[in-house]
Amino acid sequence: MAPRTACFLVIGNEILSGRTQDANIRVLAQALNGRGIRLMEVRVIPDIAEHIISTVNDCRARFDLLFTSGGIGPTHDDITAACVAEAFNVPLKCHEDSFRQLEALFPAGEFNKARQRMAWLPEGATPIENSVSTAPGFSLGNVHVMAGVPRIFQAMVAWLMPRLEAGAPLTSASWYSYDIYEGDLAEKLTAIQQNFPMLDLGSYPFEDGKKRGVALVAKGYDAAAVAYAGSALKALLHDLGFTPLEGDPPHHSRD
Amino acid sequence: MAPRTACFLVIGNEILSGRTQDANIRVLAQALNGRGIRLMEVRVIPDIAEHIISTVNDCRARFDLLFTSGGIGPTHDDITAACVAEAFNVPLKCHEDSFRQLEALFPAGEFNKARQRMAWLPEGATPIENSVSTAPGFSLGNVHVMAGVPRIFQAMVAWLMPRLEAGAPLTSASWYSYDIYEGDLAEKLTAIQQNFPMLDLGSYPFEDGKKRGVALVAKGYDAAAVAYAGSALKALLHDLGFTPLEGDPPHHSRD
Repeated sequence: MAPRTACFLVIGNEILSGRTQDANIRVLAQALNGRGIRLMEVRVIPDIAEHIISTVNDCRARFDLLFTSGGIGPTHDDITAACVAEAFNVPLKCHEDSFRQLEALFPAGEFNKARQRMAWLPEGATPIENSVSTAPGFSLGNVHVMAGVPRIFQAMVAWLMPRLEAGAPLTSASWYSYDIYEGDLAEKLTAIQQNFPMLDLGSYPFEDGKKRGVALVAKGYDAAAVAYAGSALKALLHDLGFTPLEGDPPHHSRD
Repeated sequence: MAPRTACFLVIGNEILSGRTQDANIRVLAQALNGRGIRLMEVRVIPDIAEHIISTVNDCRARFDLLFTSGGIGPTHDDITAACVAEAFNVPLKCHEDSFRQLEALFPAGEFNKARQRMAWLPEGATPIENSVSTAPGFSLGNVHVMAGVPRIFQAMVAWLMPRLEAGAPLTSASWYSYDIYEGDLAEKLTAIQQNFPMLDLGSYPFEDGKKRGVALVAKGYDAAAVAYAGSALKALLHDLGFTPLEGDPPHHSRD
């Protein structure tokens, strides 16, 4: 079973303007790990139709799966469904089931044109259900279109994941020590990486209150190799005179 | 004065694996706003040399400025400097000043080969200073290479911003109300957007504890138009029977 690859397209001016802190990338990455699907790239792009259309077409061709978030509400800047339809060269059509479900949710007179617009999906799309809101996510081919609001996004991801074909599961081994610096272990880590070319070995400096240290992580699709590499990482820390601790450090920061 | 455009390339397997929550996108976006530079795209990509090189070349051509984070430490997966050199088709060279500064920081015997490697920058690069660490950021042409660790990234951004040519400042006007839904105001918001084609108008649902509502934001480089559009947003909320409140809501989430 081969690993499957994915790309995540975050559609939203509010991330690019710094107004909003992204909360969805990590949620999707972790959910995909659990299905043996590897997130290979994330792009954050503005609500500009040509940009969305060309990026959808570029990324759905290059990766096994493409996920998007944002732009599926009732307002003028919610253009994701129309852009995906354009990318697939199919018309937007009123999805009858979605229309009736939406209609039932609003009091008489409040299911206005803007809200009806949410039931228009690209022809051939199937809805992504969620327990939180009326926002109509959908799947079309290998493209999965979801809401940007984190709570709705999470509900859609939870519904979708068990329905995706799984890839080979990714396994990892993590060890860390306090007081060590990356420069102390870089050469020995390179040697271990050369012994395990099929794995990704990474080192990550972290801060835990006033204490600092480095975490070492081996990741890959060959569980036996990951276990061997984990032992080598533990031995590296020990041989340099530090106490190896298993797992992730309490607070970690980026390398 | 025209707005300037920027792209941010986050180089890091640890974001794509979900191990680490990104903290740098918003920091850079807000700092750039302060200089009249518009963040147009963010890409998160893995530590794969060909991918980094082609993305650097694609993005430095398409945007006025390209910023990168991650991959400038002393370990085997720190390949950003080499990739940027390759993208510009220049050799990596030992940067004498950086070498001496690094050398002075480490006790005798600890300035090993892995650490010396950090002083190798693409020919023609100038260092980005920071007050926090030894990590050697640099600028080459319109590309600015920074550390991934948030505290070091922030120090580099703070040093760099006043040194970048400013663009036209972006201004914004924000109004919000509780208890309103996007679907209540979508059609009227579209009409306002049509009156101000030079501005970006956005609507953002938010949750503040158990209360919810919608925030409306007008953004653009024409301060007078932004002020007019702001008045129109306030009137829209008022005319629908809600109390317009100025600014951003206490907690906001993505649309």
